[in-house]
Amino acid sequence: MTAKPGPEAPRIVPVVLSGGSGTRLWPLSRESYPKQFLPLLGPHSLLQETLLRVADRARFAAPIVVCNNDHRFLAAEQLRALGLADARIVLEPMGRNTAAAVAAAALLLARHDRSAVMWIMPADHHVADLPALHAALAAAANAAVAGLLATFGIRPARPETGYGYIELGDALPSIPGAHGVARFIEKPDAERACAFLAGGRHLWNSGMFLFQVGALLDEMTNHAPEVVAAVEKALDGAETDLDFLRLGASGFAQAPSISIDYAVMERTARAAVVPCDIGWSDVGSWATLWEVGAKDKDGNVTDGNVLLSGSRDCYVRSTDRIVTTVVGAQDLVVVTTDDAVMVAPRERAQDVRQIVEMLRTSKRPEAVLHRRVYRPWGFYESLHDGNRYQVKRITVNPGAKLSLQKHFHRAEHWVVVNGTATVERDGETILLRENESVYLPLGCVHRLENPGRIPLNLIEVQSGAYLGEDDIVRFEDSYGRD
Amino acid sequence: MTAKPGPEAPRIVPVVLSGGSGTRLWPLSRESYPKQFLPLLGPHSLLQETLLRVADRARFAAPIVVCNNDHRFLAAEQLRALGLADARIVLEPMGRNTAAAVAAAALLLARHDRSAVMWIMPADHHVADLPALHAALAAAANAAVAGLLATFGIRPARPETGYGYIELGDALPSIPGAHGVARFIEKPDAERACAFLAGGRHLWNSGMFLFQVGALLDEMTNHAPEVVAAVEKALDGAETDLDFLRLGASGFAQAPSISIDYAVMERTARAAVVPCDIGWSDVGSWATLWEVGAKDKDGNVTDGNVLLSGSRDCYVRSTDRIVTTVVGAQDLVVVTTDDAVMVAPRERAQDVRQIVEMLRTSKRPEAVLHRRVYRPWGFYESLHDGNRYQVKRITVNPGAKLSLQKHFHRAEHWVVVNGTATVERDGETILLRENESVYLPLGCVHRLENPGRIPLNLIEVQSGAYLGEDDIVRFEDSYGRD
Repeated sequence: MTAKPGPEAPRIVPVVLSGGSGTRLWPLSRESYPKQFLPLLGPHSLLQETLLRVADRARFAAPIVVCNNDHRFLAAEQLRALGLADARIVLEPMGRNTAAAVAAAALLLARHDRSAVMWIMPADHHVADLPALHAALAAAANAAVAGLLATFGIRPARPETGYGYIELGDALPSIPGAHGVARFIEKPDAERACAFLAGGRHLWNSGMFLFQVGALLDEMTNHAPEVVAAVEKALDGAETDLDFLRLGASGFAQAPSISIDYAVMERTARAAVVPCDIGWSDVGSWATLWEVGAKDKDGNVTDGNVLLSGSRDCYVRSTDRIVTTVVGAQDLVVVTTDDAVMVAPRERAQDVRQIVEMLRTSKRPEAVLHRRVYRPWGFYESLHDGNRYQVKRITVNPGAKLSLQKHFHRAEHWVVVNGTATVERDGETILLRENESVYLPLGCVHRLENPGRIPLNLIEVQSGAYLGEDDIVRFEDSYGRD
Repeated sequence: MTAKPGPEAPRIVPVVLSGGSGTRLWPLSRESYPKQFLPLLGPHSLLQETLLRVADRARFAAPIVVCNNDHRFLAAEQLRALGLADARIVLEPMGRNTAAAVAAAALLLARHDRSAVMWIMPADHHVADLPALHAALAAAANAAVAGLLATFGIRPARPETGYGYIELGDALPSIPGAHGVARFIEKPDAERACAFLAGGRHLWNSGMFLFQVGALLDEMTNHAPEVVAAVEKALDGAETDLDFLRLGASGFAQAPSISIDYAVMERTARAAVVPCDIGWSDVGSWATLWEVGAKDKDGNVTDGNVLLSGSRDCYVRSTDRIVTTVVGAQDLVVVTTDDAVMVAPRERAQDVRQIVEMLRTSKRPEAVLHRRVYRPWGFYESLHDGNRYQVKRITVNPGAKLSLQKHFHRAEHWVVVNGTATVERDGETILLRENESVYLPLGCVHRLENPGRIPLNLIEVQSGAYLGEDDIVRFEDSYGRD
């Protein structure tokens, strides 16, 4: 876990901050399934992209992923899919912004090696030019070894008003590629942003940082001691839960919710910046995805089951189950999932937040959940809500096991369509093969397990007067749920 | 079936032409479920709206509905829902345009009463002002009784280039409200259409006609004898099938595919026109539905599960299962069904035909079928296509029965979720109640029936290497299907 400096360069510990829950990519992102877990720009999710950047164990130590407790099974599953058995997942009991998350990783590392160099990376950004990124990293590493807190400053491509800026200080003579920081600047208005772009001395703050654990903790203790104190307490109260390290809630709750920029970077005298041009994007809205996507001859970016006719400069994305078609349109964003469609002019794509707010206010599930809901044992997906009945598809991972449970208001039929199931029903154990079914009467105590080596798929037909997820009594659970 | 003239006015026989298969309202309209069967402007389909206009049996005889053989169960079901037990459905074995359809109804009526007055109405138009329609009808009836072939000419509201026009002749002194016809004019270019609108002597051809059976047949025999001859032969070869009259295919196939306008109206010297202002619309595109729909304060027309934010003058329609949202847009059409989304600027809405053509060329089902497929016994709906399995919801109408059948490549599980089923399985008869299930192994001979008084809903889980609808051997069928 600790970074052992090699003969020439230090081995760097990647720290991936995966706490965000953006709404600007609704309907693909949901409160329970935020942006970093989505494969937005290729086969891998943004979290996975981030981890793959630091997969070379000759240069990078095993990563630490700091994420929200609610997303732990999602994060674990995505790490597992990459075969990253050595990664460590630190769970935040509640969101407390980036300062607390960075402090948690730093204090954890400090137990073994205060000289370890940590690379803070948001889990939900995209970097197109990896050689340029690694060149910038080399410069930043030199700064970190010299005791500085290094940031990565992106040369602006447009007068963006949505980002913070860094004003470039003098070049640091002893560290090629690195500069001092004149100051950090909050999101500017359009006029200032244009001046920044023209002047050439302002950079976008990418949210990536590189520093030695000790240097960071010294500065944080100076400038934001209440963060350090609260996170120390949270680490003292932390519990290991399966493969997770869950920070203590009472301690962590006391941490002020502030960003690492605000808590440390804007206050320290030891900040350095590495100007770079790495094809960086914060993937902040559907419009961004159009900008960075591969365009057809009419300037459209499409993904999934999409048909266009006479349309230009559109971003269109669709689930496979539904064909999404756009006729004669220009500059539109159209995104279709299994339960929602979002249409907006590209330049208004950020306003999707208004829709999410409307959905939240009316307590509609589309704000929070996807039709497919992930669980520690796999996932389920609602296929049909009928009158006094419901049809679900359930997928159980090999070796996984649901809780021992019963329902007061529904009976269930299970039909195995792929794989093999072990079903416990009122004490009896039944082995169910493909194309076999079992009936679970109302009130019976039952449990489902996949004893096999391939995923188990079954169709569940529920019948009853009340079919809510909360009609469940759990007697025993492998994943510590009530 | 024949029209018996009352003491003052003739009782009119409505003849509803339901042969169309428009694609301009895709994805709601499909080849197998065209526009006239859709509830586009209220709770009733356009066909039902049309039939409800002539529901008063004191003034109208039982209607004749002429429709395509493929749509017979749809038409029958929609008539049944209105309680129209006396309507007669005439099936065209293939589409042959309106002249042959009108001839079929006329020849059928002529067997009993050549003086009957028939009112030809397209099944897929909307009329907002029914009192005005009935006033126009009274004038047209006087013209028909005088031996004329009356059309309904709509006063144009815009310089429409998509319709045929009628140039007004002199007023007929003996028939208040009726005029002679100077001539029929094919779809004009924009300049001519503007001149027509300004001149005030041109009317839209609504496709509705009123005439005596004898008068129509005389004129058709004069001007399009080959239509009359072919349809005579089709009637001679007609078969009664359940409640339908199916025209003979070999005879009907010989009828030239021409419109009643072209075959008779444009050639006869006996044409009359009743100018009227009846809130008529041919519901020809999604843009039309916006025009005639009830608008919110921002000019949007919405239907179904729709959320808008900052959008103006849009038409947005959604299936209940999916929330369709539009943010910051103007003048858009967005239509969502269970399997397709269509987005277009309102003024380009007609170009949806290009998408339908693309889908057809690539033989995709979305051009033809809805996810819900209607059958004589009810309907089924695909809920999920998996790997070697498929989940369907099946609804069987009370008293209805599927064919006795078997499959070579799939086994089936049936779970009854509402109602009661009688299942025949290899000679055994099983009564299946709500929340009970049955297994149908591959190759077994089986049949499903709803013996009850309420609809039967069941969930079917199919397992097998091949799951196409064509893996079926039918041994016996109540609906005459192979």
